[in-house]
Amino acid sequence: MAGLGMTQHNVSKILRLSSGSISKSFLCLHRRYSSIMPVVNKTAHEFDKPRLEALLNRRFFYAPAFEIYGGVAGLYDYGPPGSSLQANIIAEWRKHFIIEDHMLELDTTIMTPAPVFETSGHVARFADWMVKDIKTGDVLRADHLVANVLEARLAGDKEARGLAAAPPTEDKKRKKKNVKTTVVKLEDDVVKEYEIILAQLDNYTGTQIGELCRKHNLRNPDTDNEVSEPQLFNLMFASSIGPTGQHPGFLRPETAQGHFLNFSRLLEFNNGRVPFASAQIGRSFRNEISPRAGLLRVREFTMAEIEHYVDPEDKNHERFDEFRNVQLVLLDRHVQEAGGNKTKIMTVGEAVENGTIANETLGYFLARISQFLLKIGINPERLRFRQHMANEMAHYATDCWDAEIHNSTGWTECVGCADRAAYDLTVHSNKTGQPLVVRQALKDPIITEKEIPEWNKKVLGKTYKQDAGIIQKEVELMDQEQLTKLKGELAQGKTAITVSGGATFELTPEVLTIDRKTLKQSVREFTPNVIEPSFGIGRILYTLLEHSYWCREDDVERGVLSLPPLVAPTKVLVVPISARDEFNPLVKEVSSKLRKAGVFSRVDDSNTSIGKRYARNDELGTPYGITIDFASVQNRTMTLRERDTTQQRIGSVDEVIGVVTELVDGGIDWDEACKRLPAYDGVQAV
Amino acid sequence: MAGLGMTQHNVSKILRLSSGSISKSFLCLHRRYSSIMPVVNKTAHEFDKPRLEALLNRRFFYAPAFEIYGGVAGLYDYGPPGSSLQANIIAEWRKHFIIEDHMLELDTTIMTPAPVFETSGHVARFADWMVKDIKTGDVLRADHLVANVLEARLAGDKEARGLAAAPPTEDKKRKKKNVKTTVVKLEDDVVKEYEIILAQLDNYTGTQIGELCRKHNLRNPDTDNEVSEPQLFNLMFASSIGPTGQHPGFLRPETAQGHFLNFSRLLEFNNGRVPFASAQIGRSFRNEISPRAGLLRVREFTMAEIEHYVDPEDKNHERFDEFRNVQLVLLDRHVQEAGGNKTKIMTVGEAVENGTIANETLGYFLARISQFLLKIGINPERLRFRQHMANEMAHYATDCWDAEIHNSTGWTECVGCADRAAYDLTVHSNKTGQPLVVRQALKDPIITEKEIPEWNKKVLGKTYKQDAGIIQKEVELMDQEQLTKLKGELAQGKTAITVSGGATFELTPEVLTIDRKTLKQSVREFTPNVIEPSFGIGRILYTLLEHSYWCREDDVERGVLSLPPLVAPTKVLVVPISARDEFNPLVKEVSSKLRKAGVFSRVDDSNTSIGKRYARNDELGTPYGITIDFASVQNRTMTLRERDTTQQRIGSVDEVIGVVTELVDGGIDWDEACKRLPAYDGVQAV
Repeated sequence: MAGLGMTQHNVSKILRLSSGSISKSFLCLHRRYSSIMPVVNKTAHEFDKPRLEALLNRRFFYAPAFEIYGGVAGLYDYGPPGSSLQANIIAEWRKHFIIEDHMLELDTTIMTPAPVFETSGHVARFADWMVKDIKTGDVLRADHLVANVLEARLAGDKEARGLAAAPPTEDKKRKKKNVKTTVVKLEDDVVKEYEIILAQLDNYTGTQIGELCRKHNLRNPDTDNEVSEPQLFNLMFASSIGPTGQHPGFLRPETAQGHFLNFSRLLEFNNGRVPFASAQIGRSFRNEISPRAGLLRVREFTMAEIEHYVDPEDKNHERFDEFRNVQLVLLDRHVQEAGGNKTKIMTVGEAVENGTIANETLGYFLARISQFLLKIGINPERLRFRQHMANEMAHYATDCWDAEIHNSTGWTECVGCADRAAYDLTVHSNKTGQPLVVRQALKDPIITEKEIPEWNKKVLGKTYKQDAGIIQKEVELMDQEQLTKLKGELAQGKTAITVSGGATFELTPEVLTIDRKTLKQSVREFTPNVIEPSFGIGRILYTLLEHSYWCREDDVERGVLSLPPLVAPTKVLVVPISARDEFNPLVKEVSSKLRKAGVFSRVDDSNTSIGKRYARNDELGTPYGITIDFASVQNRTMTLRERDTTQQRIGSVDEVIGVVTELVDGGIDWDEACKRLPAYDGVQAV
Repeated sequence: MAGLGMTQHNVSKILRLSSGSISKSFLCLHRRYSSIMPVVNKTAHEFDKPRLEALLNRRFFYAPAFEIYGGVAGLYDYGPPGSSLQANIIAEWRKHFIIEDHMLELDTTIMTPAPVFETSGHVARFADWMVKDIKTGDVLRADHLVANVLEARLAGDKEARGLAAAPPTEDKKRKKKNVKTTVVKLEDDVVKEYEIILAQLDNYTGTQIGELCRKHNLRNPDTDNEVSEPQLFNLMFASSIGPTGQHPGFLRPETAQGHFLNFSRLLEFNNGRVPFASAQIGRSFRNEISPRAGLLRVREFTMAEIEHYVDPEDKNHERFDEFRNVQLVLLDRHVQEAGGNKTKIMTVGEAVENGTIANETLGYFLARISQFLLKIGINPERLRFRQHMANEMAHYATDCWDAEIHNSTGWTECVGCADRAAYDLTVHSNKTGQPLVVRQALKDPIITEKEIPEWNKKVLGKTYKQDAGIIQKEVELMDQEQLTKLKGELAQGKTAITVSGGATFELTPEVLTIDRKTLKQSVREFTPNVIEPSFGIGRILYTLLEHSYWCREDDVERGVLSLPPLVAPTKVLVVPISARDEFNPLVKEVSSKLRKAGVFSRVDDSNTSIGKRYARNDELGTPYGITIDFASVQNRTMTLRERDTTQQRIGSVDEVIGVVTELVDGGIDWDEACKRLPAYDGVQAV
C-alpha cells in the first residue's frame, strides 16, 4: 500500500487511494457516477444508522478514545466485543492467507527513521492541501472546502430557480454537514463555471485552489472568515528517535516498507526462490486533517498486508485453476472511463483470459479476497471490485483493483490489490546500494559467442606510454561488428585507430589480438515484481457490523447483529434461569466442557429476565444461547436457542454441547441441528 | 504498569522498575547480591551466546530494523520464525489468561493526548538523567557513566595492588563494555569513597551526579571529553495530533492508561460487578537513551497487560483453592533488605497464609504467571519471583512481585505483578471529574439512628438576619454528642450558641428542633483496587530462546532450539527426499491433511541433503519431521523424526499424521508415540 505516481499531484492522490482511505478522486468519481446498489436487509424497517451507532456504543464495540478527557477526533478504542470481533477477523485472515499459502509472516517496527520514507516518496508527497481560517486558525482540507461551498451555492441557486434540489447523494450529505444553503440565484455562466470546477477538482494544484478561493470568495463556512493560502500537510506523525533530537522519525502510514527492507532476508529464508509472499498484521498511523467518518477514516488503524514477490516474466499462479470459477462483481476501468458504473459478473478465469484482470496472480488474490470477505459475513450484493482508471494509477503499476464494500456512506475501499511492478525494491536498492534481486540458476544456460580483445600489456605500455589507457578504452567501446572488422584488419598485419581526442595510433597483432570465445550465462538476475493485497481491518469490521445489523419486525428497539459464528465475539451464551446456588455446578460443568471443546462462551447470570439477557446478546451478535433451568438441574436437559430465528431446541447436556460445537465449527447448520434436537415448547425463555 | 512513587526520584525509579526495564535500583541490587543460580543446559558445551545470536540472525528470528539503511539502536524486526513464535506465545497467553478467566479484552490507541500522561505523572517523571559529551554531543545515561568509570578505576587499583580482580559480574561485563582499565593505584580513602558512591548511586539527584562528575573528573570513557550537567530526558516519544500543532501527544509507554480510562464502560459491560479484569495485548514505546541489550531493552515492544479490579475490602480470589498448591521460587523483601538473595520454595497457599504474599488475588496471579511461563518452555530452575522492597515500591502500592527469568545478562524482570491500590482510577477521576467507582447494592442495608437538626427557615431569617447562615453552619458542624447535648438544652426551653467569630446567639425550640431519625444506606460506593500483571513479550521470547538453545554433543555447529510444540513456529517439517515430480501428489496430500488437522507444517523441498534440511529445522525449533521417500510413494509409509532425540519411527501416512497431531496437541508425548509407531532403521534420513 505504497502507491507512488509520477507527479507530485498524482502521487499524492495515489498514495491516498492505495491507502484505503476515501480519496479525493474516489469521492469525485462517486459524485459523478454514484448509484446505490440494491441493499438487502433482514428487516422490514429501513436501515437506521443512529440506532446502530447507539447499539455499538452501548455494548462497547468501540468508543471514542480518551472520552473522559473529551476525546480526540479519529482515535477509537475497541471494547470487549469489538476487540474479539477484530481478533477473530484477524485469526481467520491469518488462516485464510498466511497459513493456507505458507506466507512468511513479519512483525516490523512502527517507528521508522526519516530516510526510509524519503526514499519511498512519502516525506515529499504523502500529503493533503489544507487551508487555515485566518482568524480562528481552524484547519480545513482545501479540496473539501471548495466542494462544500460551491455545492451549497449551486443548491441555493436551484432553490432560487424553483427547481427541486436533487436529493443529496450520500457523499454530499457527509461533506455538506456544516454548510448552510443560502437561496441565491446565480448567473448561468457562473453555474457552469462552478460545475466545471467541481468536475475537475482533483486536477488543481494548491496554488490553483488558492486562486479559486480568492476569485470566488470561498470562506470557511463555519465562521465566514477568509482562509489562508493552501499549504501541503504531510499526513505522517513525526517524532524523534533517541535523546539528541538529531534522528527524525515517522510512524509508518502502512506496513509495506517493513516488508521491502527485509526482502533479502525473506528471499534467503525461502531458499532463494520466487514466487513467495510476506505478510504482516499491524498498526499504522495517518495524521488526518479533520477525520469525521467514524471507523472509516481514523488516525490509527490495524492493517493486514501481503507483498507477493513474483517473476516479472511469469505472473501465472500455481493454484489459479483451483479458483478459476470464483465469480466476482467487477467495475472495470473502461466502463468508468466511458462515464458508467455498471458492474459485470464474471469468473476470475474469464476475466484473466479476456484481459480485464492483468494476470493470474492478481486474479488469484481477487478471488481469495472475495472468498475471505464473504466468509466473515460481508453481504455479497454489497461487494464489488473496482479497477483503477489509468489516471488514478501510479505510472509503474500494471493493474490495481479495490474491493469496495457498500455501506451507509456509499462505496468504501476496504482492500486494495495492486500490481506494483518493481518500483519499491528498485528505489530502496538504488538508495542503499544493497542489491534487492533474485538470482536464478538457468536450467539451460545461455551460450553466446563473442569477439574478445586481449592486450599484451607490456608492449601496450612500452609502445603508447600515457596514451595506452585511451587506446584501450576506445577498443572496449566497440561493438561486435566493429571488433570483427578490426580483427580482419589486424589479420592483414597492422591497422590504425582514431581515438576520441582525434589522434590516430597504429595497432599491431603484437599489442592486440581478437579471438572468438564461447560464453556461458548460467544465472539470471532480476528484481521481482510485487503484487500487494492490503486490508484495512477497521473498515472491514465496521462495514460488517452494518451488514449484520437488523431489527426484529415486531420491535425496532431489539437490534440484532447476525455475525457468523466464525467471527462472532462470543459463540455461546450460557444463561442460568436464576442465580440460585443449585445452578452453579451445572453452569460450571457446561462452561468447562465448552472451553475444552474450544468454544468461547460467556455466562450471563445477571439479575434480569431471560428475555432481556437474550436481547442483550442479540445485540452482541452471540449466535447461540443455552438456557439452564430447574429441569436442567433435575434431568440434565438444556435448551439451545438460535439468535436469528429465536427458535429453541432441547437435548441432554452432552447432546446440546455436541451440537453447538459442530454449529460453531461450521460442521453443521441450524437446519441440521434441528434434525438432531427436538423443538422446545417451554415458556420460560423468550 | 504505571507505578508512581512519592518523590520525583522515587517515582522515576518505580516507573522504570514497574516498566519491565532493568531499572537502576535493580542493577544496583544485582551488583550487591548477585549470585548465579545453577544453569541447566542440555549440552555438555558451555552456553555460547555469539553462536546463538548468529543462529537467530541467520534464521531470521529477528534482525535490526532498517538494516539496509544502517539500522537504528533498539528497533528490531521479527522475521517468519520470530513472528510465529511471538504469535504462538500471544495466542497461548490469550487462552491461558483472557479466555480461561473471561477477561474483558481491549484494544486502545497508542497515540495519546498529553493531558492523560500529565495526570498519570509520566510527563513530569517518566525520565532518566542523561549527560552530553561537551565536544561530540554523544549522550550517555548519567548513572551508567558514573558506575562505568568508577568501576574501571577500582579494577585498575586492584590490578596495581597485585590483587586478582574479582571476576566481573555479568552486570559489570555489560556496563564496562567501552571502558578501558588503567592500572593506577588509588589512595585507600578514595577507594572507600568510590565504593560508597557506587552503593548509593540510586539515591543521587541529577545535580548531585553533576557534582560527582566535576569532583572526580568523570569523563566520557569513549572520548575522554568532559560531560555536561545532567538533564532529565523524558522517555516517551512525543508527537503532535492534527494539523495545527496545538495538540501534543505521546506514544504510550504502557497499555495501562487505556484500561483505566475505559473503566466505567468496562464495569457497565460486566453488569456493574467487581471483581473482573480487563486485558490488552499491544505495542508500547520508550525512547531509551542508549539501548544496547538486544531484545531485552528496546524502543518499541509488545506488552500484554491485565488490570484486575477488586473490592479493596475483599482481595480473596474465587479460584484460589484450585492453585493453592502451586510451588513458587520466592525472593522476598525481608531477605533482600537483610542483604541476602536466597530464594525459598513455597506453595502459593503457604505464602499467602504466612503473609509473604499480600493477598489471594496477587497469589492467584503469581501462580498463573508461573504456570504460563513454564508451559511455554521457560526453565523452572531459571525462574524466580522477586518482591519489591519497601523503598522500591510506590507509596500507594500494597505489594509488588517481578517474575525474573535468568539469562546470559543475569536476572531480567519479564513480568511485573503489582497491587496498585486505587491510585490510577483516583487520579483520573479527580482530574476529569468523572466518577470511576463501583456502586454496590448492600445485601443488608446499614441502618443508623441519628440526631438531625431541622430549622424553621422563616423564623431563622427573621430572627437573625445576616447572621442566620453562620449560626446554621455552626450547628451543622456539630457531632452527634454535641447535638444530643443541644437537644437536651432546647428541651429545657432555650439556650445559647457561640459561633466561630466569637458572637453568641440565643436559640429557641421555635427556630430549631432536633429529632432522632432512622437512616438506611442501601448502596456502597468505592474505588476498586487494581492488581496488575504486566508482561514484556519480547523479553519472554528472548529468554525462552536462550533456555531452548543447545548443541549436539558431537557437533557444536549443529544448534538446536528445543521449543515446545505449543509455541514452536512450525510444528512439522515435511521433507520429500527428492524434488522429483512423483513425490508431489503425496507431499500435497500430507500437507493438506495436516492443515485440516490444524497442524502448521512447512514443506522443505530445497535442493540439499536431508541431513542439512533437518539441521536447518533443528535451528528453527521444528519439533517433528516427516520424511517422504521412494518407499512412501510405493507403500504409503512415512517416517517421523523427533527433533531432540533425532529418533525416527515409521508408519502409514494416516497413522503418522494421527500420531503427530496428538503430539502437537499435547495429547501424547514422544514415549507414547514410540509405542504406537515402530522404530525406523533406514539410512536415508539422518
